[in-house]
Amino acid sequence: MTSPKPVIDAVDFFYLSMPHINLDVDGSQDALLVRVRSNNDEGWGECEAAPLPSISAFFCPPSHGACLPVADAVIGAPLATPADIDAIYQATRVNSERLAQAIHVLSGVEIACWDLLGKRLQEPAWALLGQKTSYPKTAYASLLFGETPSLTLEKARHASTSGYRAAKFGWGSFGKTLEGDRDQLMAAREGLGPDALLLVDAGCIWRGPDAVEDATRRREMLVEANVHWLEEPFPHHDRVAYRDFANQCPAISVAGGESAVNEEDALALMHDANLRFLQIDAGCIGGLGPSRRLAIAANVADCQFVNHTFTSDLALAASLAPFADNKSEHLAEYPEELSALGAAIAGRSITPNTAGKIQIPDCPGIGVDVDTPNLLIYQRSVNITVDDEILYQSPPIFEDHA
Amino acid sequence: MTSPKPVIDAVDFFYLSMPHINLDVDGSQDALLVRVRSNNDEGWGECEAAPLPSISAFFCPPSHGACLPVADAVIGAPLATPADIDAIYQATRVNSERLAQAIHVLSGVEIACWDLLGKRLQEPAWALLGQKTSYPKTAYASLLFGETPSLTLEKARHASTSGYRAAKFGWGSFGKTLEGDRDQLMAAREGLGPDALLLVDAGCIWRGPDAVEDATRRREMLVEANVHWLEEPFPHHDRVAYRDFANQCPAISVAGGESAVNEEDALALMHDANLRFLQIDAGCIGGLGPSRRLAIAANVADCQFVNHTFTSDLALAASLAPFADNKSEHLAEYPEELSALGAAIAGRSITPNTAGKIQIPDCPGIGVDVDTPNLLIYQRSVNITVDDEILYQSPPIFEDHA
Repeated sequence: MTSPKPVIDAVDFFYLSMPHINLDVDGSQDALLVRVRSNNDEGWGECEAAPLPSISAFFCPPSHGACLPVADAVIGAPLATPADIDAIYQATRVNSERLAQAIHVLSGVEIACWDLLGKRLQEPAWALLGQKTSYPKTAYASLLFGETPSLTLEKARHASTSGYRAAKFGWGSFGKTLEGDRDQLMAAREGLGPDALLLVDAGCIWRGPDAVEDATRRREMLVEANVHWLEEPFPHHDRVAYRDFANQCPAISVAGGESAVNEEDALALMHDANLRFLQIDAGCIGGLGPSRRLAIAANVADCQFVNHTFTSDLALAASLAPFADNKSEHLAEYPEELSALGAAIAGRSITPNTAGKIQIPDCPGIGVDVDTPNLLIYQRSVNITVDDEILYQSPPIFEDHA
Repeated sequence: MTSPKPVIDAVDFFYLSMPHINLDVDGSQDALLVRVRSNNDEGWGECEAAPLPSISAFFCPPSHGACLPVADAVIGAPLATPADIDAIYQATRVNSERLAQAIHVLSGVEIACWDLLGKRLQEPAWALLGQKTSYPKTAYASLLFGETPSLTLEKARHASTSGYRAAKFGWGSFGKTLEGDRDQLMAAREGLGPDALLLVDAGCIWRGPDAVEDATRRREMLVEANVHWLEEPFPHHDRVAYRDFANQCPAISVAGGESAVNEEDALALMHDANLRFLQIDAGCIGGLGPSRRLAIAANVADCQFVNHTFTSDLALAASLAPFADNKSEHLAEYPEELSALGAAIAGRSITPNTAGKIQIPDCPGIGVDVDTPNLLIYQRSVNITVDDEILYQSPPIFEDHA
């Protein structure tokens, strides 16, 4: 008789947040951590997603055969091999197809499964994904534009003196006026010096019938500032705008993909928009399995796969796993301006070396530890009842680890 | 001094469900109704979406500047003209871009706004959407395949003797074996007789590397049964499969679009997959505004716009509004097998006439009344607290209307 496969016994969610959430597009202001338990093992993951709707999508009552709670595909599922994790992903895609939030919450759960399985098998997640080597990557400091060009100049100088060979500026007031954009770009370039790579995140600012024209009017200043990529000039689904811009401005390399709703959606954007950089957030695309498939597809299409990460080092370590075997000159996003919460989740487990490179820690699973006692002060307690039955209650997570 | 514009004072959600939810893909087993109030007016809408995650997406705490609760764009917003409704839609798209469930809950809210505005201005919603005439449409009975071909035969005969000129069969065991599919198709055709239109919904059954081949192997039987359209042969986002199938089987007209996550996504599918029928569910695409724009775009592309509706007559009346001025020979989905709940929400306000046509009721707003006292027995009571503060509590809706 063979012993039965271990199954997933429990999935717990921890909703953490800063005391005050501001309107910056800074995803580290709150967090949804996931803990998966199976026999005596546990694994951790993080969703890049709105916590309360995500928790609801995991535990909600069923609506019909294609709109089931994500829990149905997870709790009790076997977890002994990488194929078991793929089976959970595939089952969720089918059973919860009409539940928009499903893939967001599944992402953190899937990552926690890789973490658990890696610890169980004493292998790093990147190796379980089928890769032979994990190369360091060129970290780019991921920053928001300063409120003024002189604040941006200061941020860029700081990134440069900190040893970064690349930096990205995004959001804020960028995209609103030509004059303002030029000043911001020139400040960023001046602060970085002539050699560092300058990346720009337009944050989907150009919308509507004039979107492509608005972006095209920035062509010269982007070239003048030697911008290495222009990220998300348009809302993710405005494929027509992406195609037209690629045709009109072939000299500008476009990056995108972080808003893809699933792997097929990301692939379609990569091909249709002729993306030169495919940015995938493992914390909302469905986890490491689909991210790894996208990294392979991007290599085939001569498009550089890059992680999208703006939260903790747990999310960062996870997001680096799917393209660990890409070469060292390839870029990796490094969130430089983490909130206190973002920094508390797993400390700063990953930091750029003197050559400006970052590396996945050499440990089983995702490779970082969640610093549970540190997180108590950020925990938000959620209670959901339906017809007076408790559907979900935040577990007393940190106490039993403290 | 001009009087200030009336604003949205309150949005209430009513989560209804049958006592037992089975695994059929029958979306009428539960419902999320939305009531919007502004001054002394009220309007009703219905989301085609998982109720609990949708309610959570409306009321959740903010995560960051692109992941805000939908309520932020709705409560207190002006509601005096159609442009005000579009402003709410656009604001939600931007503010809640990273909240996957946002567009699902917005859909019901947006529909309720059109209902309210129509009542306020004493105009039907279809007229407020810019149309001069509302034509009746050819109703197709929307049915699930029977468990056996003989049960399908019976359903088809019943549809035919009930006066339908068209019927659609879907889901169930369809797509699994060639033999089984042929038997089901022939049974459906026999039951309908030679003249009625037979539509088939494959329910995204063919997946993975063999998806296109699996679908292509049904080509002859689809032609033999004179199938008018093949709906969703592949998962919505598998654009490559849709394109390849359109190239390999140009004689089979493909229908799709119900799983689009927003209007740009639906447009991209229509163009890439060379869809002949674009099926839009106003209850999850964002409401009537985006649906109307898609109806116009479909006409331009010589693709027939069709509503996707499998729930109540409130949802049905709303879903007919965006293409009211399409001609009378055009098809409209008519959910024939509503659950008791689906039938209770607005009674059967819309029924096919002797020529098999259905028509939007000639009333202001969406055009049907929600039968609140009838719904008490279906109501599920939801309570969500965060840090011991009540974030959401099901309101005692029906009492004050009974």
